[in-house]
Amino acid sequence: MNHPALYLIPAPLGDTPPSQVLPADHIETVRRLSCFIVEELRTARRYLSVLGLRVGSLEFELLNEHTPPEDLDRLLDPLRQGRSVGMITEAGLPAVADPGAGLVALAHTYGFRVIPLVGPSSLMLALMASGLNGQHFAFRGYLPVKPPQRDKRIRELERISALERQTQICIETPYRNESLFRAFLGCCAADTRLTLALDLTMPGAFISTRTVADWKHHIPDFEGLYKKKPCVFLLLA
Amino acid sequence: MNHPALYLIPAPLGDTPPSQVLPADHIETVRRLSCFIVEELRTARRYLSVLGLRVGSLEFELLNEHTPPEDLDRLLDPLRQGRSVGMITEAGLPAVADPGAGLVALAHTYGFRVIPLVGPSSLMLALMASGLNGQHFAFRGYLPVKPPQRDKRIRELERISALERQTQICIETPYRNESLFRAFLGCCAADTRLTLALDLTMPGAFISTRTVADWKHHIPDFEGLYKKKPCVFLLLA
Repeated sequence: MNHPALYLIPAPLGDTPPSQVLPADHIETVRRLSCFIVEELRTARRYLSVLGLRVGSLEFELLNEHTPPEDLDRLLDPLRQGRSVGMITEAGLPAVADPGAGLVALAHTYGFRVIPLVGPSSLMLALMASGLNGQHFAFRGYLPVKPPQRDKRIRELERISALERQTQICIETPYRNESLFRAFLGCCAADTRLTLALDLTMPGAFISTRTVADWKHHIPDFEGLYKKKPCVFLLLA
Repeated sequence: MNHPALYLIPAPLGDTPPSQVLPADHIETVRRLSCFIVEELRTARRYLSVLGLRVGSLEFELLNEHTPPEDLDRLLDPLRQGRSVGMITEAGLPAVADPGAGLVALAHTYGFRVIPLVGPSSLMLALMASGLNGQHFAFRGYLPVKPPQRDKRIRELERISALERQTQICIETPYRNESLFRAFLGCCAADTRLTLALDLTMPGAFISTRTVADWKHHIPDFEGLYKKKPCVFLLLA
């Protein structure tokens, strides 16, 4: 690795073995690294250990929501010294919905190489398995928590979806999955299609697309089987 | 596999070995299948052969843009007989921007299990490596070809991006990459950030984020090194 790069290393979405997360060659690539920028030290060390790295000999730097922007520059020092760096964040793709994006942006301003590795994206797994429109889609992150603003936003997204044939994707903190699900049922038209993608990549994964009218007769067991499981919601009006 | 499922099998983005495409356990899952629905017979057979399947003993059905909707139902027959089916489309994730989505939607109406496998998504690889906002983004597919409509659309997307802090993602037929790139430079504000992600997952991959002003001094070699290479364009105003 005489041409240093910032490698973006996807992490498991749940408690799955690495052989279900990264392609074999990517695991080899990670094994050749010795510097890592991680969001959470404990889970990153455990992940790298399962990937076969001797964690004791590795260098770690933290990058999370508490990292001040002025500290980012220093994190690129290994690249300046010709050493590659791996970035790992919590669950899924790094730098997509976490503080890593700022560091990647900075790396580009210096002209460093950024190499994204292949791995699980809950959003894309949900989208491909939904059967909804994958030619046009928008990820909206979290919707507002308070019911009046949340319901207004749901109606707005449904309207945009109908207008642009655009699949709407959002996520929610797991303990609020049921209330968001019921809000969709309450706000959306009977024939709007809604996909729930629960606990993706895990043995108990549940992915189902139904119309809003149909969901009303098939409420998932949010208090039992799917209690506090991560869920991706997709909607197409 | 006594519980049949429709497996969605990602395909390589370029001429890369399977060990850079699918996690090892997923390759094993594919090896246990004997029925496949594919977009293009020749490339799917070659891919499955490299994955270690004996292609001569497999059953194939075609699903492409010429497949009439009334033929979709029949493609689910193996599932009705308790047999799992694998779906493979051209380059990347099946059922995201191809005719497979209709079949997945139909599978849900019958309550069949749909299992998406982990693999390369050019859109997500580009997004994570861009450093742009991954909390809010929209995939816009192809922009209009004719310059007046195209430029109008670019300005509209830039306006939406500024308003919603939403990363805009689009693709183009490779031979038009340069004209789309120059259209972005001509239409967008000097400090709007534009990412080019060319030939992702390949050894010559090029991913760079610059402001529009900066790109004007760093035009990529679209006629040489990056001639007719697939490109993902991302913009954040």
